[in-house]
Amino acid sequence: MLKFINFLVPRDSKFFPLFEKASGNLLHISKVLVEMVNTTAPEKRKELIKEIEHLEHVGDSVTHEIFNELSTNFITPFDREDIHALVSSVDDIVDFIHGSAKRMELYKITETNTSISKLSELILQGSEELHKGITGLRRMKNINAVKEACVKINSIENHADDIFDMTIAQLFEDEKDAIKIIKLKEILSALETATDKCEDAANVLESIIVKNA
Amino acid sequence: MLKFINFLVPRDSKFFPLFEKASGNLLHISKVLVEMVNTTAPEKRKELIKEIEHLEHVGDSVTHEIFNELSTNFITPFDREDIHALVSSVDDIVDFIHGSAKRMELYKITETNTSISKLSELILQGSEELHKGITGLRRMKNINAVKEACVKINSIENHADDIFDMTIAQLFEDEKDAIKIIKLKEILSALETATDKCEDAANVLESIIVKNA
Amino acid sequence: MLKFINFLVPRDSKFFPLFEKASGNLLHISKVLVEMVNTTAPEKRKELIKEIEHLEHVGDSVTHEIFNELSTNFITPFDREDIHALVSSVDDIVDFIHGSAKRMELYKITETNTSISKLSELILQGSEELHKGITGLRRMKNINAVKEACVKINSIENHADDIFDMTIAQLFEDEKDAIKIIKLKEILSALETATDKCEDAANVLESIIVKNA
Repeated sequence: MLKFINFLVPRDSKFFPLFEKASGNLLHISKVLVEMVNTTAPEKRKELIKEIEHLEHVGDSVTHEIFNELSTNFITPFDREDIHALVSSVDDIVDFIHGSAKRMELYKITETNTSISKLSELILQGSEELHKGITGLRRMKNINAVKEACVKINSIENHADDIFDMTIAQLFEDEKDAIKIIKLKEILSALETATDKCEDAANVLESIIVKNA
Repeated sequence: MLKFINFLVPRDSKFFPLFEKASGNLLHISKVLVEMVNTTAPEKRKELIKEIEHLEHVGDSVTHEIFNELSTNFITPFDREDIHALVSSVDDIVDFIHGSAKRMELYKITETNTSISKLSELILQGSEELHKGITGLRRMKNINAVKEACVKINSIENHADDIFDMTIAQLFEDEKDAIKIIKLKEILSALETATDKCEDAANVLESIIVKNA
Repeated sequence: MLKFINFLVPRDSKFFPLFEKASGNLLHISKVLVEMVNTTAPEKRKELIKEIEHLEHVGDSVTHEIFNELSTNFITPFDREDIHALVSSVDDIVDFIHGSAKRMELYKITETNTSISKLSELILQGSEELHKGITGLRRMKNINAVKEACVKINSIENHADDIFDMTIAQLFEDEKDAIKIIKLKEILSALETATDKCEDAANVLESIIVKNA
């Protein structure tokens, strides 16, 4: 049934540009995150955190726009629940990026930290793949590219999981200051959750492909 | 389509009284929370925590009743997913109120605390708005009142977010007892999450309005 | 409508064996968890954690298989959302069992601990009930058995809640090493969440029964 409805949906549907706007914004905020966590100059760092805050607002308004379209359009390019789940996951990734940046500022984590850098880099890689995957949805032409992106996101998430687990175990081993452990654990956990949400988004992409292939 | 079906739904549908019962109970438990966190007398405090526990059970049974209606009625006043999401969010708020009260008792937090009071006050304000919004759904007459409630809930949640962040940052700055930090962080976080769930409920209200306006 | 469709669904539908495979695997991993937390020999413990890891992968692939069937079959024995929610909850329980076992290894928790044992035992009881409940779905014959399983799961979750709360309160009372509190709290919390997810699954079972009774 979906396949048939697809014929009725104009190729230049309003949904696709909005999806790409959302994943493009995610890509943008991920790049700023990586730059921020690798910066030591306090002023520059503050500036980049402000930019992350701004991009989180941008993401919120794109999400809102898509949900509005979803509520007012009878015909959608995919199942409405899939659109809702996909867009919510992208919004969640952006939120967790913002949340970890805000915490670094609030908890006065000013030095760079290898695990934070690595996890941020993995979030950026995940966002790149997700942006590719979402862009690939538009014509359902290049299904293999979408599938490939999903596979890569899964392996990125596994990698982030391992880094998180190892870092926390190491922290418990080496760090004797419990308060420092609490702070770092919370930031690392927000970053790791961002990659989980990336995997959630990839799962929705896979399900869309299965239904429409 | 929904608009058309609405004509078929008796105005005195069983759903609306149940929705209002759920949000009325939320309002009730929020008031008891505010009273409890501002009470220093240990006996009075214990009594109020017991009342919170009781109201949590009341909430559970209303939720259960609505889910039963949802499963056995073919025609519902709004999309079933929206009803499910709305009622689940209200249930979640009640659960987080109960969870934070229970933790205050278990962790023997007996003194009053400014941030806990402020967050509890915000939960009460959010519950008042939510109750107004849910009551406003009944005839879809006063859509502006529902929208206004949603806007206020969003700003309440932002406010709670800021208070939470500032309090935790301050705790890390001033408090040197890590165990005390862990305890307070958990209670504050449960209270803050209650306002998040309030926002979730407001988002569902907005989506119901968009679809039925 | 569902009742009518049920006549069209072959009794030997592919879904039921897959559901039972998922809950059977959950039962298996729960048994290994109980054995592991009661073992003191480090080598044996390591071996059992490896087995838990393996069973988590098995669970993942069953989940994936069911989601694939869901995407490609037009007729399903129950509402697709219910199937999705049921299978996701079972997958979540398995994930939290695996997560807590992994943390015990990473944080070098090698001694046995009464609360960890008790919570693991409750997870096993919950899994047994869930497996009974899911098996009972097959012919919708023995609805009372399914209902009974749900009631038991609810009481198991309440029991786990109480043990968790008491243990944490006791920890705050007795343990002065904040780092040890953080470690144990995280493991206990993962175990307790497993029983929450068990209750989520039971709620879906109940809703399936109400709709199809």
